[in-house]
Amino acid sequence: MSTEPAELTELRQRARELSDLTGIGGLLLWDQNTMMPAGGAGARADQFEALERIQHARLADPGLGRVLDALEPWEASEDSDSDDVRLVRALRRDHRKAAQVPTELAAEISSAAAYAQQAWLEAREAHGFGHFAPALERVLELQSRYIACFDGTGEFAHPYDILLDDYEPGLTTEELQGIFTRLQSELVPLVSAAAAAGEDGQVFPGHFPVEHQRGMAGELLPAVGFESDYWRLDASVHPFARSMAATDVRLTTRWEEDDLAMAFYSSLHEFGHGLYEAQFEPHHYRTTLAEAAGLGTHESQSRLWENLVGRSRPFCEWVLPLLRRHLGGPFEAQDAAALYRAVNQVRLSLIRIEADETTYNLHIALRFELELAMVEGRLSVAELPDAWAEATHRLLGLEVPSVMEGVLQDIHWGAGMIGYFPTYTIGNLMAAQFWRALAGDVPDIDALIGAGDFAPLREWLREHVHRHGRKFDSRELLHRATGEELSVEPWLAYLEGKLLDAGLLTAPVRVPRS
Amino acid sequence: MSTEPAELTELRQRARELSDLTGIGGLLLWDQNTMMPAGGAGARADQFEALERIQHARLADPGLGRVLDALEPWEASEDSDSDDVRLVRALRRDHRKAAQVPTELAAEISSAAAYAQQAWLEAREAHGFGHFAPALERVLELQSRYIACFDGTGEFAHPYDILLDDYEPGLTTEELQGIFTRLQSELVPLVSAAAAAGEDGQVFPGHFPVEHQRGMAGELLPAVGFESDYWRLDASVHPFARSMAATDVRLTTRWEEDDLAMAFYSSLHEFGHGLYEAQFEPHHYRTTLAEAAGLGTHESQSRLWENLVGRSRPFCEWVLPLLRRHLGGPFEAQDAAALYRAVNQVRLSLIRIEADETTYNLHIALRFELELAMVEGRLSVAELPDAWAEATHRLLGLEVPSVMEGVLQDIHWGAGMIGYFPTYTIGNLMAAQFWRALAGDVPDIDALIGAGDFAPLREWLREHVHRHGRKFDSRELLHRATGEELSVEPWLAYLEGKLLDAGLLTAPVRVPRS
Repeated sequence: MSTEPAELTELRQRARELSDLTGIGGLLLWDQNTMMPAGGAGARADQFEALERIQHARLADPGLGRVLDALEPWEASEDSDSDDVRLVRALRRDHRKAAQVPTELAAEISSAAAYAQQAWLEAREAHGFGHFAPALERVLELQSRYIACFDGTGEFAHPYDILLDDYEPGLTTEELQGIFTRLQSELVPLVSAAAAAGEDGQVFPGHFPVEHQRGMAGELLPAVGFESDYWRLDASVHPFARSMAATDVRLTTRWEEDDLAMAFYSSLHEFGHGLYEAQFEPHHYRTTLAEAAGLGTHESQSRLWENLVGRSRPFCEWVLPLLRRHLGGPFEAQDAAALYRAVNQVRLSLIRIEADETTYNLHIALRFELELAMVEGRLSVAELPDAWAEATHRLLGLEVPSVMEGVLQDIHWGAGMIGYFPTYTIGNLMAAQFWRALAGDVPDIDALIGAGDFAPLREWLREHVHRHGRKFDSRELLHRATGEELSVEPWLAYLEGKLLDAGLLTAPVRVPRS
Repeated sequence: MSTEPAELTELRQRARELSDLTGIGGLLLWDQNTMMPAGGAGARADQFEALERIQHARLADPGLGRVLDALEPWEASEDSDSDDVRLVRALRRDHRKAAQVPTELAAEISSAAAYAQQAWLEAREAHGFGHFAPALERVLELQSRYIACFDGTGEFAHPYDILLDDYEPGLTTEELQGIFTRLQSELVPLVSAAAAAGEDGQVFPGHFPVEHQRGMAGELLPAVGFESDYWRLDASVHPFARSMAATDVRLTTRWEEDDLAMAFYSSLHEFGHGLYEAQFEPHHYRTTLAEAAGLGTHESQSRLWENLVGRSRPFCEWVLPLLRRHLGGPFEAQDAAALYRAVNQVRLSLIRIEADETTYNLHIALRFELELAMVEGRLSVAELPDAWAEATHRLLGLEVPSVMEGVLQDIHWGAGMIGYFPTYTIGNLMAAQFWRALAGDVPDIDALIGAGDFAPLREWLREHVHRHGRKFDSRELLHRATGEELSVEPWLAYLEGKLLDAGLLTAPVRVPRS
C-alpha cells in the first residue's frame, strides 16, 4: 500500500467539514421541531439560510472540483469497491450537482422553504389554502429555476428526475410510473376485498393517558435497541428521526390520548430510521459515507420496523403483555390473534400518516401524480385542492371534506420537498425485499421476535444494510443484500400473505407475477 | 442623506452571516448542556471546531479588512454615534483581533476546550485532579500561544490584558488589581462583622419537591417578564442563559430538592441575562451590535435581578405569598422581614455559586489571583490545588476538604475561559451603579417591586442599557447611563446599607470613600 495522495488527505479534510455542517443542520432542524419557542421561527430560517449558503459554497467550490479531478488517475488504479474510491465518487457526485446551482439560488430555496413551512402552519390554523398558495407558488418557481440549472447536462431524461435524484439517486420518473401503475392495479382489488372482510373502527380503541404511553415507549424502545446514552425521544407535531452522529440519535413521536397507534407505530418507525444511522460504520464518521444510501433505503428501515416487525404475528404475541402492563384496560381482554388482526385491518382513510399498511401506497400514488403534474406545468397551485379531491375520489373512493384532510395535511411541499414522497413507496418495496433475504439467512427470525430477541435482526441489518452508509447507492445496496433489482412483487406477496394469515382476506385475490 | 457606500452594504451582509453563525453556536452550546445524550459529546466537539474554523476565517478574512479600510473616509464624515459607524467599529475591532490569530490555532483552542470540559466532568466523577491536569495544561499552552499572537501590536500592557479584552474590551490587569485590593480590604471587616451577627444554616431550610419548585418558577418568571412564546426554561448542571435571537431566549436552572435557593436565585439571575438579550434594539438584529457590550455589563444584568431586585426588602414582601402558594411549609411561619434577613445572611463558604452576595467577590478575587499567576508563569497546573487551598484559607478563613470543593468546582478554566471570572465582579459593581441611576429616575421603584410591577424596571433597563447592545462598550455605556466611571464605592455602600437595614449589621463598619 503506497502513501495516499495529498489530494485524498485534502478531500478528507473537506469531507470532515461538510459532515460537521450536516450534523449542525440536523440539530437546527431537530430543535426547530421540538424545543424552539414559537418566536424563534424567523431567526431559525435565517440560520438555515446562512448554513445552506456555506454548505453549498463549500460543495460547489471549484477548488474541490480540482482536487477531485486530480484524483482521477489514482482512482483508476484502485479497487473500485474500496471506501476511499467510494468517498471520492460520492463527493464528486455532490460537487457536480452543487456546481450547477448558484449559491444564491440554493440560499433562496432554503429561505423560501422556511417561509412556506410557516405559511403552511398558519394556513392550517386558519383552515384555509389561500394563505399557503403564494408561498407554495414561490417554492415551485424556485424549483423550476433549480431544474433549469441542469439544462444541457444531458444527465436527466425528465425534469422531475432532477428532483427525484436529490432524494434517491438514479431513480427515474419512468420507473416510478411503471411501479405506481402496477401497484394501483393490484391494490385496488386487494383493498376492496380486505376492507369488506375487516371490521371498522380504530386500531386501538380507548383513551390512554400520555404518562402511560410514555411508560410503554420507555419499555418498548429499549427492548428493540434504543440506548439511552446515545438516543433520546421527544414530542413533535410530525414524528421524525435525526441523528447528529451515530452516537447522538434523536427520535420524536406524537402522544395522542385517543389514538395510541400514533405513538406506538411512529416510535417503531422512527426507531428504524434511527437505527440505520446509529449503525453506520464507525470509521466512516465525519465522511460523506456516513449518510444514507438514499431516502428509499432510509424509509425501508423505518417501514421494516413499523410493519414487517411491528405488525407481524410474533411481534403481536411478544408485545401484548407489555401493552397490558402499561395500558391495561382494552388489552386485558384481547388475545394476540385479535391484536394481529386489528393492526393489519384495511380501512380507506383520508390521512396518509394514519393510513394502514395496505392502502398507504395509494396515498403516495396520489401525491406522485399531482406533483408530477405540477412539475410538468399541467397543474397550477390554484387547481391543487380540486385535483386532490378528484384523485382521492378516484384512488380511495372517498370525499375530501376540507383542505385539512386534503392538500394541507402534509408539510413536504411547503418544505420544498417535491420528489420526496415516492421514496416512501420505494422504501415499502425495499423493506419486503430485504426481509425475504433476512428470513433466508435467519430462518428462526419469527421465533426470535416472538421471544423479544431483536439483536440478530439488528445485526443482519447492520451487516447487510446499515454499515455501508452511502458507500453504495440504494440500487447497488439492494442488489448486494438480496441479489435482486427493485421489484413490486415481494411486497405484494408479503402483504397478501399477511392479510390471509390474519384472516383479513378469506381467499387469495392476486395472481402472482414475477 | 446620501446613498450608503457599497462597502457598507457588503459589510452588513458579512455581519448578517457572522451573527447567524453566532446564533447557531448558541444552539450547539445550549443543546450540549441540556438535551444532548452523553454519547454525543465527541461529535459536538467536532461541530464546535468546524463552526469556530468558519467563524474565525470569516472574521480574519483580508477581504473584510479591505472593506473596513475602504470605509474609513466615509466614517470620518459621519456622526460617530450613529449605528452604522458603531457597526463598522465593532467589526473592525473583531477583525483586527481575529487577523492576529491563525485559524488553525483558533480551531485548536476550541477543540482543546471541548476536550478539557469532558476531562473536567470525568475528573469530578472520579474526585481527582490528576485526570484534569493534562487537559488544563494544554488549554494554558494554547492560551499562551494565543497571547503570543499579539506580540508587537503594542496594544496591551500585560499578557493577561489580552485575555481580559476578549470578555470585557478595554479592561486592564492594573485596574483589576486596584479593584480587588480595595474590595478585599473593605470586605474582610464587613464579612467578619456580618457573619458574627447572622445565624448559621441554609437560606431556605427544608425539602422542596421538584414539581413544586417548577410551579414556583412557572409563576415567578412570567411575573418578572418571561414570555413563553419567546423564552424557555430547562435544567442543566450549571445554570446559564443563551439566546439564539431576541425572540428565542433559553434559560436553565438546577432543581435541588434540598436547596431551593439554587433554582430560585439562578432563575432570577439567568432571567437577568436573558432579558438583556431579549431587549436588544430590534433593528440591530443580524448585526454585530446585537451582542452584549461586554461580559461585565451582561453580569450586571443578572446580578441586578438576582441581588438588587431579588434580595431586596420589597421583593421579599411581594414574593413571600408566591413561595407560600407553591412551597407552603416553612414559608407559612416566616414573615417578609425574616425572609429578607435569611436571603442576605453572610456565611463564609467554599462554593462560589452558592456564596452569598457579600462574600461572592472574595471568591472572584481568589480566582483572579490564581489565573493571573498562571498566565504570568508563576504558578503551574500541578501547584494549583495547593495554591487554591492556601488562598481559600487566606481570603475566606476556610480549609478545602477536597478538590471538589476547591479547584474542580468551576468549569471555566477547562472551557478555556481564563480572564472571564473578573467580569463577575465588574458586573456586581456596575449593577450597583446602574441601580443608583435607576432609583434616581424611578423614585417609586421600591413600591413598584413591592406591588410586583416590574415593567418600569424592565423599561428603564431597556432604554438605558439593553437596547444599545454592543453599540457602546461597557465603560461608555456605564457613563452614558450613570454619568460615572466604574467604581467600587456604590456597591460597597449599597451592600453595607442593606446589611444594616436587614439587621445583619448592628452598626456601620466602613468609612465611606469616593
